[in-house]
Amino acid sequence: MTTGVRRRMGVEERRQQLIGVALELFSHRSPDDVSIDEIAAAAGISRPLVYHYFPGKLSLYEAALRRAADDLAQRFVEPHDGPLGARLVRVMGRFFDFVDEHGPGFSALMRGGPAVSAGGACSISTASTTNALIDSVRQAAYVQILTHLGVTDPPPRLELVVRSWISLAESTALIWLDGRRIPRGELEAQLVHDFAALTAVSAAYDEEMAGLLRHILADEPADGTFGDLITRLVALAPAPVPAPSGA
Amino acid sequence: MTTGVRRRMGVEERRQQLIGVALELFSHRSPDDVSIDEIAAAAGISRPLVYHYFPGKLSLYEAALRRAADDLAQRFVEPHDGPLGARLVRVMGRFFDFVDEHGPGFSALMRGGPAVSAGGACSISTASTTNALIDSVRQAAYVQILTHLGVTDPPPRLELVVRSWISLAESTALIWLDGRRIPRGELEAQLVHDFAALTAVSAAYDEEMAGLLRHILADEPADGTFGDLITRLVALAPAPVPAPSGA
Repeated sequence: MTTGVRRRMGVEERRQQLIGVALELFSHRSPDDVSIDEIAAAAGISRPLVYHYFPGKLSLYEAALRRAADDLAQRFVEPHDGPLGARLVRVMGRFFDFVDEHGPGFSALMRGGPAVSAGGACSISTASTTNALIDSVRQAAYVQILTHLGVTDPPPRLELVVRSWISLAESTALIWLDGRRIPRGELEAQLVHDFAALTAVSAAYDEEMAGLLRHILADEPADGTFGDLITRLVALAPAPVPAPSGA
Repeated sequence: MTTGVRRRMGVEERRQQLIGVALELFSHRSPDDVSIDEIAAAAGISRPLVYHYFPGKLSLYEAALRRAADDLAQRFVEPHDGPLGARLVRVMGRFFDFVDEHGPGFSALMRGGPAVSAGGACSISTASTTNALIDSVRQAAYVQILTHLGVTDPPPRLELVVRSWISLAESTALIWLDGRRIPRGELEAQLVHDFAALTAVSAAYDEEMAGLLRHILADEPADGTFGDLITRLVALAPAPVPAPSGA
């Protein structure tokens, strides 16, 4: 970022620099394995000076997490232009960019948060802070999807589909990070299709959801992502509708 | 469970009784709101006697959680008879029975675990104990599903579908508990269909998964749960395949 030349930074500037340095370290290794000494070294300042800006690793971790949460929530923002499927494809690409950039930190966080603690102090407040941040990102994703669907007062079945799909996206990303055995582009496309599939399953038994699904599919191009899926599924399915006899 | 008559219990018998009483209380209210005094009163013994069997609320909570985890894992066991769809329907019924019985405790646990602590002691070890228990239940579910599919060496895409569907079942149960606005029978059926739908989406782009899907569907009766879904989806879909021209 900068050369070894020390220059004076303002308090807020220094805090932001430390948050950036810490986030970089927390992203690439489990936060439990990152020491304040390393953060100090990476920022080019002394350990006591780190403590001047942050009372401990815990508060620095929370600040880094807050920046990461803001960053991720920003990536959900997508213009309201074009088919819904293509919009979701773009958002999934940015979501996996984020997961890719913050892999080990993302894993540690989603698996119940790291056991980051300052000298034996209790991590209960961290757990609730991190849970609140995770929930705020989930909520941001939920709100974005509703606005793209043009729904302001979602029925319970739609809320269930959207929220449970968000958790599916999280778990898919976590499983991907554990070995990266499937190309991420495939998973991005698959999650978009999963959204359509979960909506379709819900719509199979509920008229309100069926109306919503028709609305979604109405603007989809035949050669778009959903059209592609339907064509492939039809090719895969054992012909479920018998041909008219005698035709 | 018993009358007010005090009788002498053996150590292990008393421990098991306390675990049962605690699990009952932890199931119906957030574990953070349950005191040792209440557990003692419900068990009909004194507070000091509770501490004679368990060093604190934490260890009693962990023991109760272990029993609940064993209980849940047992509910995944299903005979290898009949169509796969019908088996999964029965397992989902037992899963929602469990969620129903342990509602608030299940929610607290899955939302990052309760902040149960013994007099300010740190909950880090609890967090890792509870996470390990949750993972063991997920693993039990995963193994059961693979044996029913007759797969011993799952390809990465199948592992992804099964594991991510398990997380979908968890989040669906959590969302259901938050207000119970959708009948649970509908969600049980929907999750079975979601499993088929996620498998189908994966199969749409992968030949190995397509083979597995054909294998699953081969033994399904036309009027079974998957046949019912396909019929409904076909009725819902805008005819995606054009009729042969001139026919």
